[in-house]
Amino acid sequence: MALRAGDHSQVAMNGLKEKVLTLDTMNPCVRKVEYAVRGPIVLRALELEQELRQGVKKPFTEVIRANIGDAQAMGQKPITFLRQVLALCVHPDLLKSPDFPEDAKRKAERILQACGGHSLGAYSISSGIQLIREDVARYIEQRDGGIPADPNNIYLSTGASDAIVTVLKLLVAGEGPTRTGVLIPIPQYPLYSAALAELNAVRVDYYLDEECAWALDVAELRRALCQARDHCCPRALCIINPGNPTGQVQARECIEAVIRFAFEERLFLMADEVYQDNVYAEGSQFHSFKKVLTEMGPPYATQQELASFHSVSKGYMGECGFRGGYVEVVNLDAAVQQQMQKLLSVRLCPPVPGQVLLSMVVSPPAPSDPSFAQFQAERQAVLAELAAKAKLTEQVFNEAPGIRCNPVQGAMYSFPRVQLPPRAVQRAQELGLAPDMFFCMRLLEETGICVVPGSGFGQREGTYHFRMTILPPMEKLRPLLEKLSQFHAKFTREYS
Amino acid sequence: MALRAGDHSQVAMNGLKEKVLTLDTMNPCVRKVEYAVRGPIVLRALELEQELRQGVKKPFTEVIRANIGDAQAMGQKPITFLRQVLALCVHPDLLKSPDFPEDAKRKAERILQACGGHSLGAYSISSGIQLIREDVARYIEQRDGGIPADPNNIYLSTGASDAIVTVLKLLVAGEGPTRTGVLIPIPQYPLYSAALAELNAVRVDYYLDEECAWALDVAELRRALCQARDHCCPRALCIINPGNPTGQVQARECIEAVIRFAFEERLFLMADEVYQDNVYAEGSQFHSFKKVLTEMGPPYATQQELASFHSVSKGYMGECGFRGGYVEVVNLDAAVQQQMQKLLSVRLCPPVPGQVLLSMVVSPPAPSDPSFAQFQAERQAVLAELAAKAKLTEQVFNEAPGIRCNPVQGAMYSFPRVQLPPRAVQRAQELGLAPDMFFCMRLLEETGICVVPGSGFGQREGTYHFRMTILPPMEKLRPLLEKLSQFHAKFTREYS
Repeated sequence: MALRAGDHSQVAMNGLKEKVLTLDTMNPCVRKVEYAVRGPIVLRALELEQELRQGVKKPFTEVIRANIGDAQAMGQKPITFLRQVLALCVHPDLLKSPDFPEDAKRKAERILQACGGHSLGAYSISSGIQLIREDVARYIEQRDGGIPADPNNIYLSTGASDAIVTVLKLLVAGEGPTRTGVLIPIPQYPLYSAALAELNAVRVDYYLDEECAWALDVAELRRALCQARDHCCPRALCIINPGNPTGQVQARECIEAVIRFAFEERLFLMADEVYQDNVYAEGSQFHSFKKVLTEMGPPYATQQELASFHSVSKGYMGECGFRGGYVEVVNLDAAVQQQMQKLLSVRLCPPVPGQVLLSMVVSPPAPSDPSFAQFQAERQAVLAELAAKAKLTEQVFNEAPGIRCNPVQGAMYSFPRVQLPPRAVQRAQELGLAPDMFFCMRLLEETGICVVPGSGFGQREGTYHFRMTILPPMEKLRPLLEKLSQFHAKFTREYS
Repeated sequence: MALRAGDHSQVAMNGLKEKVLTLDTMNPCVRKVEYAVRGPIVLRALELEQELRQGVKKPFTEVIRANIGDAQAMGQKPITFLRQVLALCVHPDLLKSPDFPEDAKRKAERILQACGGHSLGAYSISSGIQLIREDVARYIEQRDGGIPADPNNIYLSTGASDAIVTVLKLLVAGEGPTRTGVLIPIPQYPLYSAALAELNAVRVDYYLDEECAWALDVAELRRALCQARDHCCPRALCIINPGNPTGQVQARECIEAVIRFAFEERLFLMADEVYQDNVYAEGSQFHSFKKVLTEMGPPYATQQELASFHSVSKGYMGECGFRGGYVEVVNLDAAVQQQMQKLLSVRLCPPVPGQVLLSMVVSPPAPSDPSFAQFQAERQAVLAELAAKAKLTEQVFNEAPGIRCNPVQGAMYSFPRVQLPPRAVQRAQELGLAPDMFFCMRLLEETGICVVPGSGFGQREGTYHFRMTILPPMEKLRPLLEKLSQFHAKFTREYS
């Protein structure tokens, strides 16, 4: 029997064996993954917070994390009704309490009835609680002017990220020149590039048009597709609308053109629509890919494959920590859908509290309900403040020489372009850093403001950007924007 | 420009284009995934429930889902203290209520202080809330008799499944004969085979010894490893202790032998210890791999790589729906650990409510706390009933001719062996079914009892089993076990 015992040549002189798992032996696809939103700049921000707590003197008193779309971390209060229903579901003894409105109790009882053992502690079925899938379907129908949605095409998920990765997993196949290619916008939300690296798929970049408020141009899609066909097999097209990090909201004609393009070129459409409630600019309106595709009629309505994603983390609720979301699939092959169901079942179920919050988001209090007035007031206050902050951000940045910011039509981010002096670019290169990373690191060290360099999202060669959320509270946002602009001016002088 | 438009040969005669995503074009690794715990038998159980609701006459009045370790779905009540703290965290207005004990309020306030924006709605850092990682570290230290645990080696997760897949992801590499092989027990929990199929790693089966109460035998590990080295590169060894589906609890000497084997053969150890609180048999005791490894001293203590997994879904709490868990890594290469941190950051964070429950599980009320008495009483009641049900299951099954059941020393399942008459095996083969799948399907159709065929977990060729949870309430369990035994007798007569 050719039994090979532990290889003693691997025992080094100091008696230490080499580790089984090292950078050299680990999964090479995982090594290629990058995720800037929580990259080195955020690790440094965490260190700075610790130093401040330890009393180390800094030119600032707090670190402001404008790197991530995390509304409640920035002080936004949870929507009362959502939390009331969830508390009732978590601890049903509260159903007897007089301190909760009747409609919250009704909602909670309805959800508990639909849970295994009438408890959030039971697994749900893998696609999510059937009642909540039905709630989601009704929400989609209402959003899309009555176009039907089938609960069986809706899968609840652990935030939108989980559902996006699940659909990408189904799509990847092939090797060498037949490897699956996936078109993603540049700039993009780096979940896409990270997931494609991990899955060993080919990332095909198409550039959004900064000169046209980051609009999507089909000619550019075509260029990217055509070049990609030389070395991979492009099979899917990802759209983020409203845009992250761009804040762009797509016009209906653009969406129609994209759908025609996808149909002609045989691309599976993935529509990341998690910011569908975050539209601020006058004249901008959210159009779902599902609605436009259906209204275009056959063959698009009947044949074009689409997955549309939504989340409880954004919108007016910002319940990121609960990890709730869903995907609706349209025109998916029935056998593939069975495979998707099977794949989801391995992870048992998405977190039930996130499912419960999603149910509330898609079926909020009706005008006749006791909680309606407060719910509406809280919701509107959040959205109105976000709209004001979107406008303010654009305005203050555009007053600063060397910074140019497109209108923040929707979502939660500005993605301004900054001019960096050639000597700063050179200095960054000497340090082995992307020039905008160098800028953002210096900004963090000197002001405590944490934003993410554009290089983490992708940008045209030789241009530099950063992504900053519009989420800090109004009273902090203006000084923040001004401080950032002043830092840029100082940085520019320093390297001129 | 070599622009290739949509290929019109793909438009069939009926005007329908072929779908982009079909069984033929989808990810072939996903196609290979199987997950019996939620497979065809469970889909049929769902259908039967629907038929019963619609008034279809059946030889039973309810479907009993003994297929999955989901305690609360089977009627187990949540532990009051856990839900009180969680409700306070979800809806902090309740901190003013006189209806909550002081220690629950203190716990909730402590956790909220550690959350972004003092809200569960904020993302946590990707490895989990630091305070809760520290709680987990203290729990591990106490469990392991004072052996230190470093919070920075602890990563909170979306149930244990998520953490297991994350570690497997780091380990897979290579192609052809250098592909990563992972040793898994047979019978196994099918998350392992499913994840390995999806990741395109090689599954290396080692058989547990049914004649010795499903004990692990190092000679069999060695056989499996030796054979596997011909066609892959085995790099990790998975252990499930207490065993799922076997219910076996490993003796300390066995764990020591496994650790020596892993060290000699350079295998990364993955210890699935989610049932560490579920040990029932006299003389059985849970020993963590971390503790045994540390007490063995160098070189094991200082060099052997280990990942140990735990969960809030099992134990006495059974909070499956919240998807909470953690992994502790030991002797992991520092650079790999950074890569792991990066990989986790792409998914932002595990669900915060699950983190909160985990915090409670690892730091329950102390004897001086007002909630202690009730907490202890509830916990003990659950564990005592599980112990009684484990014993009853073994006893009733072993009274039935043709059924043989090893002692359920721990975990939540029995995995009895059933004799199936040759004519039944033949009939199953004619139907294209595994013989135990045929048996379980017939059982479901005639009795409403839903259990999972042994073929979904793996078993020695020619033997047949099923996995049944011990979770149904005591008053239902005995009739259930008897009904199952009687069905087996009838089935045996029918095919003799």
